[in-house]
Amino acid sequence: MSSSGLPFDDIRALLTHMPPLDEEAQRAIRSRDGELTKPPGSLGRLDDLVVWLGGVQAKTIPTASRPLVAVFAANHGVVARGVSPYPPSVTAAMVANFSTGGAAINQICGHLGLGLKVFELALEIPTGDIASEAAMDEAGCAATIAFGMEAIHGTDLLCLGEMGIGNTTIAAAIYHALYGGAARDWVGRGTGLDDAGLARKVHVVETAVALHRDHLGDPLEVLRRLGGREVAAMVGAILAARTERIPVILDGYVVCAAAAVLHALDPAALDHCVAGHRSAEGAHGDVLQRLGKKPILDLGLRLGEGTGAALAAGVVRSALACHTGMATFAQAGVADKT
Amino acid sequence: MSSSGLPFDDIRALLTHMPPLDEEAQRAIRSRDGELTKPPGSLGRLDDLVVWLGGVQAKTIPTASRPLVAVFAANHGVVARGVSPYPPSVTAAMVANFSTGGAAINQICGHLGLGLKVFELALEIPTGDIASEAAMDEAGCAATIAFGMEAIHGTDLLCLGEMGIGNTTIAAAIYHALYGGAARDWVGRGTGLDDAGLARKVHVVETAVALHRDHLGDPLEVLRRLGGREVAAMVGAILAARTERIPVILDGYVVCAAAAVLHALDPAALDHCVAGHRSAEGAHGDVLQRLGKKPILDLGLRLGEGTGAALAAGVVRSALACHTGMATFAQAGVADKT
Repeated sequence: MSSSGLPFDDIRALLTHMPPLDEEAQRAIRSRDGELTKPPGSLGRLDDLVVWLGGVQAKTIPTASRPLVAVFAANHGVVARGVSPYPPSVTAAMVANFSTGGAAINQICGHLGLGLKVFELALEIPTGDIASEAAMDEAGCAATIAFGMEAIHGTDLLCLGEMGIGNTTIAAAIYHALYGGAARDWVGRGTGLDDAGLARKVHVVETAVALHRDHLGDPLEVLRRLGGREVAAMVGAILAARTERIPVILDGYVVCAAAAVLHALDPAALDHCVAGHRSAEGAHGDVLQRLGKKPILDLGLRLGEGTGAALAAGVVRSALACHTGMATFAQAGVADKT
Repeated sequence: MSSSGLPFDDIRALLTHMPPLDEEAQRAIRSRDGELTKPPGSLGRLDDLVVWLGGVQAKTIPTASRPLVAVFAANHGVVARGVSPYPPSVTAAMVANFSTGGAAINQICGHLGLGLKVFELALEIPTGDIASEAAMDEAGCAATIAFGMEAIHGTDLLCLGEMGIGNTTIAAAIYHALYGGAARDWVGRGTGLDDAGLARKVHVVETAVALHRDHLGDPLEVLRRLGGREVAAMVGAILAARTERIPVILDGYVVCAAAAVLHALDPAALDHCVAGHRSAEGAHGDVLQRLGKKPILDLGLRLGEGTGAALAAGVVRSALACHTGMATFAQAGVADKT
């Protein structure tokens, strides 16, 4: 991780320079879509996804030939409070498992032909325990955002994923801070907490948000105080993808916490993102509604690692294959509607 | 198409010899699943799909290495009544488009690595107009079922698809006959009917079911009188797949009409089938509920050709890749739950 970072003001400035979706490219794609050998609109969401790709990329013939799943891994001081059934050592062990090809995301990337990069964010130094202090200082948080901005070059379809024991607690705290309600509304069982663990987790999220409550009007302060390094890096990745016109597929409950921070800064900041799936982690459906994102898949996944985003990339790339590869009515000599 | 066929009694006899799902294989898969480097059950529907594959195949390590999309194409006399915005010549033109690789299903199969076979069922001889006569005689219907039974050898994961101008009318008539209600409950816009066309289609389905109403207690008579050759062939394909322990992914509104005929004969006849997707054709969600099938995907597709089933095959094969390729906690040296 870089030791230097942008101050938050520079990050805020980036939000004022986001390229809009290219409406001309979108019109051209809809027009070609009407000529393909299928009833208009009959591929439903697939048709819409191609229009979205083209709008983000500003290309009348979008590409998704260098798809990348970027997985950000970090550790969290709050784990000492018993919010996960797994020990924090599992984060590093799973990173090793990614590198030897043994995790779920490896198999999905292999099967669907997606690139995979895993970024470790100082696993040996957990962030501060959010129930007693801020997770990060501003320099560290900004440096991690900057790291995320640099991590995603060279792809034309970015799937975001994460690994970090304790990070559904972090995500729940961010949602509770951004969206209010009660802590229990945002807390789920994560990797499989029992009832006692769930009660501890609710209490920790309550305590953390109460501790920092006077500083939560600024979404970047929410990120710094209640977040984690993987969440900060993904904030940077999403921002940089927008600047570079890279379409982004969000994963589940934790990835969407990064998206929610940006959405709170500016709802248009997610125009280049789609929701890959709806997670089984309780509040994710509510989060997606607040983000205005309809998930592509709804398969009861609650693993993270980018697995839901990667599976959705298979749908997105199939959609693009249809759009670019299909014959037109004229080419195929198929009669159009009578 | 073969000129000889099984009488219906022989088809009924096959239903009494369906192998059950192999519970021992399913237990072995659930047991291995608990050892993989992920929280138990965290791949949700994907975990369940692997158990289903293994149960159908009676294999503790299922395979999906020879996936096949089988598309059955046929024409329908009822089209003369103005139930589709496309002329019947489009069926043959789309079959030609499949053979030259220009259709949506070609692109999806190419992208996801699925085999594709298209079976034409006497396109030049439409079946009888169901609103004035039976679609098929018993010998022809049984021969077409037998054809479907022979068509699907050599695959270990079968996706069913269809093409046939007018066949959403056929499917609606089958559902109306099997499930009652009003004709309008089962009739949708198909490839894109306008309001006047939709009214004609409702009237045709009403007329057809009323004409044959004294003979609709037997699901095979429903198929013969109100069906079409692609539906009959898919009935055979589903039956043969069961005997050969081949898992089947159903596609949308028309494919499920074949499944519904079998389900009406014996609900257990679909234990080797999953629903690939929920179609945008209005009543498909209701049909899936009656069949007891939860769709893998819900993407607003209404194209047919097996497109939804093929996309779902990408999910099923990704699920299997996870199960067979992931490291165990012991192999990866990852700590299990504390």
